[in-house]
Amino acid sequence: MGSLDTERATMGWAAKDPSGILSPYTYTLRNTGAEDVYIKVLYCGICHTDIHQIKNDLGMSNYPMVPGHEVVGEVKEVGSEVSNFKVGDKVGVGVLVGCCRNCRPCEADVEQYCNKKIWSYNDVYTDGKPTQGGFAESMVVDQKFVVKIPDGMALEQAAPLLCAGVTVFSPLSHFGLKQSGLRGGILGLGGVGHMGVLIAKAMGHHVTVISSSDKKRVEAMEHLEAADSLDYIIDTVPANHPLEPYLSLLKLDGKLILTGVINTPMQFLTPMVMLGRKAITGSFIGSMKETKEMLEFCREKGVTSMIEVIKMDYVNKAFERLEKNDVRYRFVVDVAGSKLDP
Amino acid sequence: MGSLDTERATMGWAAKDPSGILSPYTYTLRNTGAEDVYIKVLYCGICHTDIHQIKNDLGMSNYPMVPGHEVVGEVKEVGSEVSNFKVGDKVGVGVLVGCCRNCRPCEADVEQYCNKKIWSYNDVYTDGKPTQGGFAESMVVDQKFVVKIPDGMALEQAAPLLCAGVTVFSPLSHFGLKQSGLRGGILGLGGVGHMGVLIAKAMGHHVTVISSSDKKRVEAMEHLEAADSLDYIIDTVPANHPLEPYLSLLKLDGKLILTGVINTPMQFLTPMVMLGRKAITGSFIGSMKETKEMLEFCREKGVTSMIEVIKMDYVNKAFERLEKNDVRYRFVVDVAGSKLDP
Repeated sequence: MGSLDTERATMGWAAKDPSGILSPYTYTLRNTGAEDVYIKVLYCGICHTDIHQIKNDLGMSNYPMVPGHEVVGEVKEVGSEVSNFKVGDKVGVGVLVGCCRNCRPCEADVEQYCNKKIWSYNDVYTDGKPTQGGFAESMVVDQKFVVKIPDGMALEQAAPLLCAGVTVFSPLSHFGLKQSGLRGGILGLGGVGHMGVLIAKAMGHHVTVISSSDKKRVEAMEHLEAADSLDYIIDTVPANHPLEPYLSLLKLDGKLILTGVINTPMQFLTPMVMLGRKAITGSFIGSMKETKEMLEFCREKGVTSMIEVIKMDYVNKAFERLEKNDVRYRFVVDVAGSKLDP
Repeated sequence: MGSLDTERATMGWAAKDPSGILSPYTYTLRNTGAEDVYIKVLYCGICHTDIHQIKNDLGMSNYPMVPGHEVVGEVKEVGSEVSNFKVGDKVGVGVLVGCCRNCRPCEADVEQYCNKKIWSYNDVYTDGKPTQGGFAESMVVDQKFVVKIPDGMALEQAAPLLCAGVTVFSPLSHFGLKQSGLRGGILGLGGVGHMGVLIAKAMGHHVTVISSSDKKRVEAMEHLEAADSLDYIIDTVPANHPLEPYLSLLKLDGKLILTGVINTPMQFLTPMVMLGRKAITGSFIGSMKETKEMLEFCREKGVTSMIEVIKMDYVNKAFERLEKNDVRYRFVVDVAGSKLDP
C-alpha cells in the first residue's frame, strides 16, 4: 500500500489548445484517499459535449484537458473507507466526480443539480488540482461517483450508458414515464437519441424517431398518425430548432424534454402549452442512484448500445466524424487496448 | 311549463362591430331543454379576454356579440332531466357551455381541453345558434356547465372566481401545489393575478407578487432573497416578456405556469430549464369539477375577490379603464340592478 503515499504519474490524451487536437500528455493523479477508488481505464465513450469542451465552444475551457466522461475501468486500489468496491471490480464513471452533499438537490439524491458539482474533467477538484477525464490510463474517483458495471454486461457496451443512457433514463424515470404502453418521440438520432430509442423500447413504449432535418421532419410528421398522439418527446438536438411542430404532437399533459444545451434562444407560443397543459422541460444527465437503476434496467432488458470501437490513435479522426454526425451511434475508445505513449 | 315550448326574447348589451362599443341588443334564447337551466343573470365580471373578443383582436369575432363569462345568476326554470338545481338556486357559469363528452380530456373530466369545447359567447351552439354571454338579462345553459354558488358567499364576489379564480386554482391543484408552506410567485397583478395572490395565500403559501414592468421588476428581484427560491410562478401577463429572470427564481423542479395568451413568440435558453429540471408549462381556465372545488375552497377559507361593482351603463368606460389597467382588480357589472333597455 506504499503507493497510497505518493502521487502517481499517468498518461492521457489531452487537448492543449482550442484546436481541440488530442495528443499524449503525462500528469499526476492524487493519492488514493480514504473514500477514493483508483481505476485503470478500459473503455471511454466520446460524447458530443467533449467537442464543445476541447474546442472551448463555451468559453470555459482550461488546457491541457483530458476529456472523456463515459468511463469503464477496473478497480486497482481502494481507500480505507471504501467498502462497496474491491480490486478487480469492473466499474463506471460518468459526468460528475463531486458535489457539496449538503444542498437540497444533494440531500434529495439528485446531485447533478448541485450548484457545486464537480465535472469529471475541465473542472477543479477539492484539492485545487484540475480534474482530468477518461481518455487516460487511470483515474482516481470518490466512491460516491463510481458505479459497478453489472456482471454479464459487455464493458465497451456499458460506456455510452454512463452519460447518454442515463440522460434519457433519468427524465423517463423522474417524470413518471416508465410504464409500458406509452407513446414516445425521440427527436434527433445521435448518441443520446439512439439510447433513448433503445431504453424507451425496452420500457415497452411505442417509439417514433423524429428527425430534426427539414426534409426528414416532414416525412416523420406524415408518418405520425396525428397531432395529440405522444405522451412525451425527448429532444436531443443540440442546435436551435422550432418547437411548435413537436409541441403539437403531444397529448394533453404531454412533455417536451430538452436534453441538449443550445446557446441561442428557443421560441414557442403560449397557447401551445396552455391548450393541452403541455410542458417544455429539461433534464441534465442523471443522479448516481438513477445511473445504478439504469444499468440494472439495461442488464435485465438486455439493452446494448450501438457503438463503433476505436483505438486512441483514431480519436482525432473520430471527433471530426462526430462533428459531421458520421457515426452509428457512439464512438468508444478501447483505451486499455491502445498505445497511449508516442 | 308552457314557456318551455317557446323561444324567449332576452335583452343584453352587445358589441356590434370591432369598435367594441356595447349597446342594447335583443335576441332569443333557446327553449329550456331537458338538460338545461334557465338563469336570470345577477352579476357578470369583466375579463381581459372580453376586450380581445369585442375588438376582434384574435380575428375570430362574430357580431352582434354579448360578452361576459363570469356569470352569477338565479335559476328560474330547469329541464326535466335536471336534478342538481332547482328554481331559486344561486348559480354560476364560466367560460364554457359545451364539450364533446367523448374525447380523452372529456373522459378525464378536464373538458376545458376538449377540442370541441363551446365558448359561452362568440361561438356556435349545438343548435346552430350563436352563443351569447352574461351581460344580459338571462341565459340558458346545459346543467353540466352550471355550478352552485355556495351558501353564504356574496354573489358579486363570486363572479370573478368563475374565470380568474379557477384559472389559478386549476394549475395549483393539478400540478400538486396545494399544500401549505410552498413559496409561490405571481407575475402580473390584474384580475387573474390578484385571485392568484388570494388563493395561494389561502393555501398557506408564501406569495411574492412580481411586477412585469421593468422598474418594478428590478425592485421585486431585489426583494426576493435569492435565485432558486420559488416552487412555482403563475405568469398572468398577457403581453410578451422575458422568461429568464423568472426561471432563475425557481427552485429545482419549479414550474413557470403561463395563463396568458400571447401571440408573439416567447423565448428561453435550454440550460435554464435543464439545469434544475424546471418546467415552462401552462394552464387554461379549469374544469367544472375544479370550479366546484375552488368555490368550496374559497367559501371555507373566506377568500373574497377585490372588485369594483358597476352598472351596465358604465360598461364601455370600464373596458376603457381595464385596457389601461386602471382597476383594482376586477370590474363586476350589477346586471340585475341595471337598466338594460335604452
